Amino acid sequence: MRIRVINPNTTAAMTAVIDQCARGVAAPGTVVESVTSGMGPASIESHYDEALAVPGLLAEIARGEVEGADGYVIACFGDPGLYAARELARGPVIGIAEAAMHTASHLGRGFSVVTTLARTVGQAEDLAERYGMQRFCLGIHATDIPVLELEDPKVRGVIADACRAAVAADGSDAIVLGCAGMADLCEYLTAEAGVPVIDGVAAATLSVQSLVTLGLRKSGYGEFAAPLPKQYTGLLAEFGTDEASR
Amino acid sequence: MRIRVINPNTTAAMTAVIDQCARGVAAPGTVVESVTSGMGPASIESHYDEALAVPGLLAEIARGEVEGADGYVIACFGDPGLYAARELARGPVIGIAEAAMHTASHLGRGFSVVTTLARTVGQAEDLAERYGMQRFCLGIHATDIPVLELEDPKVRGVIADACRAAVAADGSDAIVLGCAGMADLCEYLTAEAGVPVIDGVAAATLSVQSLVTLGLRKSGYGEFAAPLPKQYTGLLAEFGTDEASR
Amino acid sequence: MRIRVINPNTTAAMTAVIDQCARGVAAPGTVVESVTSGMGPASIESHYDEALAVPGLLAEIARGEVEGADGYVIACFGDPGLYAARELARGPVIGIAEAAMHTASHLGRGFSVVTTLARTVGQAEDLAERYGMQRFCLGIHATDIPVLELEDPKVRGVIADACRAAVAADGSDAIVLGCAGMADLCEYLTAEAGVPVIDGVAAATLSVQSLVTLGLRKSGYGEFAAPLPKQYTGLLAEFGTDEASR
Amino acid sequence: MRIRVINPNTTAAMTAVIDQCARGVAAPGTVVESVTSGMGPASIESHYDEALAVPGLLAEIARGEVEGADGYVIACFGDPGLYAARELARGPVIGIAEAAMHTASHLGRGFSVVTTLARTVGQAEDLAERYGMQRFCLGIHATDIPVLELEDPKVRGVIADACRAAVAADGSDAIVLGCAGMADLCEYLTAEAGVPVIDGVAAATLSVQSLVTLGLRKSGYGEFAAPLPKQYTGLLAEFGTDEASR
Amino acid sequence: MRIRVINPNTTAAMTAVIDQCARGVAAPGTVVESVTSGMGPASIESHYDEALAVPGLLAEIARGEVEGADGYVIACFGDPGLYAARELARGPVIGIAEAAMHTASHLGRGFSVVTTLARTVGQAEDLAERYGMQRFCLGIHATDIPVLELEDPKVRGVIADACRAAVAADGSDAIVLGCAGMADLCEYLTAEAGVPVIDGVAAATLSVQSLVTLGLRKSGYGEFAAPLPKQYTGLLAEFGTDEASR
Amino acid sequence: MRIRVINPNTTAAMTAVIDQCARGVAAPGTVVESVTSGMGPASIESHYDEALAVPGLLAEIARGEVEGADGYVIACFGDPGLYAARELARGPVIGIAEAAMHTASHLGRGFSVVTTLARTVGQAEDLAERYGMQRFCLGIHATDIPVLELEDPKVRGVIADACRAAVAADGSDAIVLGCAGMADLCEYLTAEAGVPVIDGVAAATLSVQSLVTLGLRKSGYGEFAAPLPKQYTGLLAEFGTDEASR
Repeated sequence: MRIRVINPNTTAAMTAVIDQCARGVAAPGTVVESVTSGMGPASIESHYDEALAVPGLLAEIARGEVEGADGYVIACFGDPGLYAARELARGPVIGIAEAAMHTASHLGRGFSVVTTLARTVGQAEDLAERYGMQRFCLGIHATDIPVLELEDPKVRGVIADACRAAVAADGSDAIVLGCAGMADLCEYLTAEAGVPVIDGVAAATLSVQSLVTLGLRKSGYGEFAAPLPKQYTGLLAEFGTDEASR
Repeated sequence: MRIRVINPNTTAAMTAVIDQCARGVAAPGTVVESVTSGMGPASIESHYDEALAVPGLLAEIARGEVEGADGYVIACFGDPGLYAARELARGPVIGIAEAAMHTASHLGRGFSVVTTLARTVGQAEDLAERYGMQRFCLGIHATDIPVLELEDPKVRGVIADACRAAVAADGSDAIVLGCAGMADLCEYLTAEAGVPVIDGVAAATLSVQSLVTLGLRKSGYGEFAAPLPKQYTGLLAEFGTDEASR
Repeated sequence: MRIRVINPNTTAAMTAVIDQCARGVAAPGTVVESVTSGMGPASIESHYDEALAVPGLLAEIARGEVEGADGYVIACFGDPGLYAARELARGPVIGIAEAAMHTASHLGRGFSVVTTLARTVGQAEDLAERYGMQRFCLGIHATDIPVLELEDPKVRGVIADACRAAVAADGSDAIVLGCAGMADLCEYLTAEAGVPVIDGVAAATLSVQSLVTLGLRKSGYGEFAAPLPKQYTGLLAEFGTDEASR
Repeated sequence: MRIRVINPNTTAAMTAVIDQCARGVAAPGTVVESVTSGMGPASIESHYDEALAVPGLLAEIARGEVEGADGYVIACFGDPGLYAARELARGPVIGIAEAAMHTASHLGRGFSVVTTLARTVGQAEDLAERYGMQRFCLGIHATDIPVLELEDPKVRGVIADACRAAVAADGSDAIVLGCAGMADLCEYLTAEAGVPVIDGVAAATLSVQSLVTLGLRKSGYGEFAAPLPKQYTGLLAEFGTDEASR
Repeated sequence: MRIRVINPNTTAAMTAVIDQCARGVAAPGTVVESVTSGMGPASIESHYDEALAVPGLLAEIARGEVEGADGYVIACFGDPGLYAARELARGPVIGIAEAAMHTASHLGRGFSVVTTLARTVGQAEDLAERYGMQRFCLGIHATDIPVLELEDPKVRGVIADACRAAVAADGSDAIVLGCAGMADLCEYLTAEAGVPVIDGVAAATLSVQSLVTLGLRKSGYGEFAAPLPKQYTGLLAEFGTDEASR
Repeated sequence: MRIRVINPNTTAAMTAVIDQCARGVAAPGTVVESVTSGMGPASIESHYDEALAVPGLLAEIARGEVEGADGYVIACFGDPGLYAARELARGPVIGIAEAAMHTASHLGRGFSVVTTLARTVGQAEDLAERYGMQRFCLGIHATDIPVLELEDPKVRGVIADACRAAVAADGSDAIVLGCAGMADLCEYLTAEAGVPVIDGVAAATLSVQSLVTLGLRKSGYGEFAAPLPKQYTGLLAEFGTDEASR
């Protein structure tokens, strides 16, 4: 089984972190292939960044389809392009917010999200609603640490403090990490927070692995069927689906 | 006051229809400028198409900001890129689904949406939820007419039949047209359907005009503040916001 | 186009404030006619007051129908008698809470309401729910200033403080003013609050103007059809609809 | 204990039906006093009728307070003026829709409402939402029998048919009768429908009786405190609360 | 009329408290029979305790059916086994959380629950949702007093403090007592809290009495029909329903 | 890793079916141990059966804790005793309805449940709500096949017909099988239904496996902490937790 984990920003260092976390949980026999988007923003911290990360993500899905990937993880907590990716892929596609929230819902009455910039909180709320996880999502807490500064060792303590404060404020049973770039902090934060801490990269990798094991993929018709053939023009002409594609 | 109406697909003929409907309702003194996206799909009929229409839309918003537009209409019923556009624009941005649903909610207990392909129904449901209009949205009905065939005179009757059937099935007080390409059918369908029929292009033009008249625009901080400066690479490098932009 | 703005309390001084705000935003060619209710309470600060303001409001709607009004604004934040007024009027009727909340929803993720007495907060919650605006209404904050003291210059600062406190507490993107009597404070409060401030009188005037421009009015059958002819007796006999009326 | 049952329309014949049903269930020692509104519509079949039935209802509450009533039933399925009445009364006030829906929720997973005119269905939906009973209200079915024709023996079979059809369509566990004028049909319809049938007049009488027995009444401050003293003018001047009242 | 009030824990002292409260409100002619469960936990303070209190409760329902009880109160705030009891009983079965929450909803905009251990708060939330009372339930506050220590006179003041704090924090119109063991504190707490305080035991006794008076019981088919005959084995063999039972 | 799959009814033949499905998806290195409850009903088809299946389930959890199980599957679609089991177990516990619904939510916009008796539909609705899956659960369809007749080859076609009818009626993207006893029909039904079909036993086995791999278990304090020590009496005295336990 081959699972492609796509980092939809263009920062390869973050892909390395993601890759390690995904490989760390995959079953024997599951091949994890982590890739970095070839176009768009260096990090995703606004609706604008997210919208413009999607073409690069979709290009990686298209490449994965050609190369035979069995399933995909979208390794950014905004789950950018999830629905479009599901149209394009034959196998399952899971976002890390989706997987982390679902996973956390099995552990108790509710979770807190600890994330990066305050301006991304609204997007996390929207995702909780989309996935039916609103009733479990007891609070979303921003640290105002930019995504690309997460690897700075000095911020670890700030995030740990935010986790503890979130548990105290929300009475939550678990913490969901609100950025793929926090994936390697999961063990440290579990020790600090006193409640389970969930890294969406690991959670999504196992969700995709489970779906592939179960032989489950979209039905092939309806909303998530392959996009209709269509002419594309301008800068994005290569994304056109009107003849050669699929 | 200058309102820019953006057709986020690349089909200029549809922009002409849209332009006429927008101009038809604007107040004296309001200048309507309709533009066609310069890149992406010829029509938007999937999540994939929608995602890839957004960069072209955002390019038009950026151009409008340089050229001094006071507000924007996104003239596609999926309201693609609405949140990203709000970050980029200083003035108000309204989607046609947003405007049409809000407008319909003033006319009675609920409305039916009559739209194009069945695979777009889920997206309309998502928008109704996002805008708080779920309680007014009594049904979404697909005609399975592709967007680019809407101008064919033969389909008018099919759409009128769908409107009548929707009113009967849902007990609705109004019809919301689920595609910018139906804008010029509004008068015909009103006569046929026996209930008010709402074209989102006209509704959104007046919503933007009202917001500009009221002097209302986003607060300038928080979720919808201008995107943070950021390096973009690859095919989308020109969308980078790290120095020259804004 | 003639829009009738009805102050459903009997205080003519408040009507003057309302009139100025409505006229200030109407398009050239739109005639604003503001009227004061001829019966009922001097201000509306309880469910009791609101219920007993409705007959006077409906009398004004009936008069407007005879005199050819094209649409109506109900200029009290409780939107008293909205549904009954919609039955009676041929053209659109919009309440100022309705218009303000809808308008605010276009500006960001959510708004705070700043209002008069604490005992009216529940009514504002009910309206937010009725209009589908609950998800945007992040808080309702009472100043405990009686309606008829709003014109006292000393209270301006109290309201400005409440606006700032509401934005801080709710993380809101806009303020909705919770009383028609605050309409003339909108500009002052915008400067003080640091976020957009919305006066429902102005917003509703433009909403009605837009609906009339779009040619949209209720369908004429169903829940909001004209009331059935009926015998009325006692003090309210003149409201009877059984022969002469309509 | 004295319970006042108020028929908010002006049709005394309907009060007689209501009175019999209320007396039939009251405990020994509970005095039921049924009264007919002295002003307003002969029956309530629109938002307009309902709004204009409220002053008469409130006049009866005010009279009851003077005469020492311990609690009140509002005997019209729209529960007109419920919140205003709660402000005015010291003891409990219950509407028949409120009581019937709550009572039905104890009997199974959900109920159907069988009511009079189709144009009143929306109001019943609003009430189900207000009382938290939406999840139990599986359907609202109109018979299109006018309120004042309910006593015609020929309509009994039509209502029975509607009850059976509602149970079949909704899979409901009980029927809630949607009009005070149906109160005396409860026994007949129970036999016909095959599921419990709930008359709100009887249910509300017992709800009020229970609240009085429990010594429960509003707290005396906040939203439902007595209306503030206020000057009233015009036709409704007598409703003024500024000095003599309370 | 004979109402059986079942204490589903095995502590007879608590049954005595419950019995007194139930008898104190029953109408003349209503016989209250309070019983203590014969098996299971001494108090119910976890999901585990609750699950294991249900067999004892159901044994009492089965005995009540043989002995001719007309209806039942489940006198534990978790309403354990309510749905199973409804299947087994011919007459109405009401839980004290159910009755207390419904009753409180008639008194204003919302109530606070004051309860025992913090770990039971989630269960109270679930019940509020199940009964449609979420919109009225403004807060659930734990005192962390164990159930079996409620009779200690020293805890009365702690509970009174919690009631006052709850009203201040939630702006609630009433207090719902979150444990049958608090039933005898209702009068004291009403004086202390300044708002109505509701004891579910009394409220449920009157709810059952009302349902029996109204002649209302489940329909006899569907979800709450008598359990199907079935073989039971092991420790619980006596609960088998396959021949002798019913 | 050792996963215990508990059949909470007493029918060993069904445990054999369940065991085969669970083993069929477990990763190399995961040991699946399927057990049959030692007490209670032969099948679970009512709230009564479900309530009385819980003690046997909890006894198996307690035994698993002694024997070192790493996680548990509750293999009945009502997910009986899930919360109590979570208190008792140190590792994760997942119900098959929970797992199946979550899994289905990753495949499209919504799923239909196809189940056994109509009287169990309400319970499935409750679970969909509890897990946040209501928005994905588009319909629940009963076949009225008793649980213990599912192994009869003649019913396969009936279930296939129900799956096809559910997809047509609901427009669903997947089928969730509403009984552990249908687990071995999953492959057959996938071929027949034309959409993915999800067996909760397999889905839950992988969910537990994923949680154990991720090192995720409850936090150890709060709602799902181990039950407090407590005296139990009567038939269930052995479930007491007051000294030896844990």
